[in-house]
Amino acid sequence: MRSYIIDKLYERVEKRGVVCVGLDTALEYVPEHIREGRTPAEAIFQFNKEIIDSTCDIAACFKVQIAYYEALGLEGLTAYKRTLDYLRKKDQIIIADIKRGDIAATAKMYAKAHFQGDFEADFITLSPYMGMDSIEPYLPYLESGNKGVFSLVRTSNKGAEDIEYLDTTFNKKVYEVVADKITEMGEDYIGECGYTAIGGVIGCTHVEEGKKIRANYNSMFFLIPGYGAQGGKAEDVALYLNNGNGGVVNSSRGILLAYKKENRAKEFSLCAREEVIKMRDAIREAVKRA
Amino acid sequence: MRSYIIDKLYERVEKRGVVCVGLDTALEYVPEHIREGRTPAEAIFQFNKEIIDSTCDIAACFKVQIAYYEALGLEGLTAYKRTLDYLRKKDQIIIADIKRGDIAATAKMYAKAHFQGDFEADFITLSPYMGMDSIEPYLPYLESGNKGVFSLVRTSNKGAEDIEYLDTTFNKKVYEVVADKITEMGEDYIGECGYTAIGGVIGCTHVEEGKKIRANYNSMFFLIPGYGAQGGKAEDVALYLNNGNGGVVNSSRGILLAYKKENRAKEFSLCAREEVIKMRDAIREAVKRA
Repeated sequence: MRSYIIDKLYERVEKRGVVCVGLDTALEYVPEHIREGRTPAEAIFQFNKEIIDSTCDIAACFKVQIAYYEALGLEGLTAYKRTLDYLRKKDQIIIADIKRGDIAATAKMYAKAHFQGDFEADFITLSPYMGMDSIEPYLPYLESGNKGVFSLVRTSNKGAEDIEYLDTTFNKKVYEVVADKITEMGEDYIGECGYTAIGGVIGCTHVEEGKKIRANYNSMFFLIPGYGAQGGKAEDVALYLNNGNGGVVNSSRGILLAYKKENRAKEFSLCAREEVIKMRDAIREAVKRA
Repeated sequence: MRSYIIDKLYERVEKRGVVCVGLDTALEYVPEHIREGRTPAEAIFQFNKEIIDSTCDIAACFKVQIAYYEALGLEGLTAYKRTLDYLRKKDQIIIADIKRGDIAATAKMYAKAHFQGDFEADFITLSPYMGMDSIEPYLPYLESGNKGVFSLVRTSNKGAEDIEYLDTTFNKKVYEVVADKITEMGEDYIGECGYTAIGGVIGCTHVEEGKKIRANYNSMFFLIPGYGAQGGKAEDVALYLNNGNGGVVNSSRGILLAYKKENRAKEFSLCAREEVIKMRDAIREAVKRA
């Protein structure tokens, strides 16, 4: 038994709760007073910085959705790098939500891109469509103990039915085949907490399957999107956790835009903090009841 | 019937042949005399520029693999942007090989990132794992007639067996389900050439299935990787084409590193040109024989 990055994430959840703050920051989310006198990329960074300052003692980790930054080109990716740098400076765990999926030399390049250098993160998300050789090139980094991945497994969008939910001829759905394969691959990277550094992205909206998935993949740490804005509730999420750990629950717009509900633009970061606490406590309560 | 970007690509193939030049440019591919006095990113751009100048009258299009540029961080993405800008200036068709796969607001951000602004390309590659709602957000751009996508369908790596080749309970493999779905979605974007602006990435190494795939998905334009360095041969490729059109065949290392076989580093761009011609003619001959 040795220590992996997943142990650090597990500890954070124990201490701070399961909330993963999603920095999917679109320019239109940023209040006017922050935008004033700043370029779009600077405004986005400043917004992120204040959200981070305000939530970093109560967030398990931060998930940064690179698409929002890519959309602003080189300037946007500069804001992305600055956000990652700031999170690292504050000793926060970073999940880079990049959903890259490629093989061989190309995957090695993505590993280099997102596990070192300008865009270094602690965890990255991956898409497994091309097969397990789209995950393997990242394993040497996991071996170091400092890095981890989350493979897409089963998501909560409507289109999940198109491929992830297809029934295969050996009595498993496609997403179950994926889950089986990454579980097997993850066995070599199980940390002291009992979870492996190869996690899975598991949407939380198919409530009826929650307990089954949790039981079947007990060594898999879940990255659970879809809370709040996408419809997931605390009661649903609780089913995907083991006594309130074994996963982190992401909310992006629900946290970043909490200020809009009460028209408190000047206090956007305080509103974000209140929302994280509300979400954390709602899930804690739901776990107790479950 | 109206005109789409796929018509332009079809025309290029008619005039120039099927070769897609893959600019998967790693720093170690760049000869010493180009690297001298340049930063890594500058050296990569200069190398690409000379390859483009030397092959742009005989290449159907260029595929730029973003992972190689992401690996060098912001500097690398500057070289990526400069490469795309240069290709556009030379009126070349650009396929951005990004294999992004996400949904809803995030996919819209990726569309914005790669269909306009700093990283604008003509075509992008996408991963369909999350379902058809990971393709739909790009359709408004296709509607304009100026943009197209290639969805991963069936690749030529070993891991393709893991998911793409799974048999589903309704007598189709996963990749066939994907191909059916994108074919259906593509029906609204069929150009004058008879192909749709929603193409498919189809590896060329499973020879026995070539004719069947070509016949079953007759409106689908194929992006065919795996030539040369990855083992595909002209005879194999010919089976995936309709009289030498209906697809482009990518080679990256085979073209970029042609100079290494003959130790002609100073003439790397001429060697690339010779390789493109050799590949183009070999496929033409194979099409005639097929």
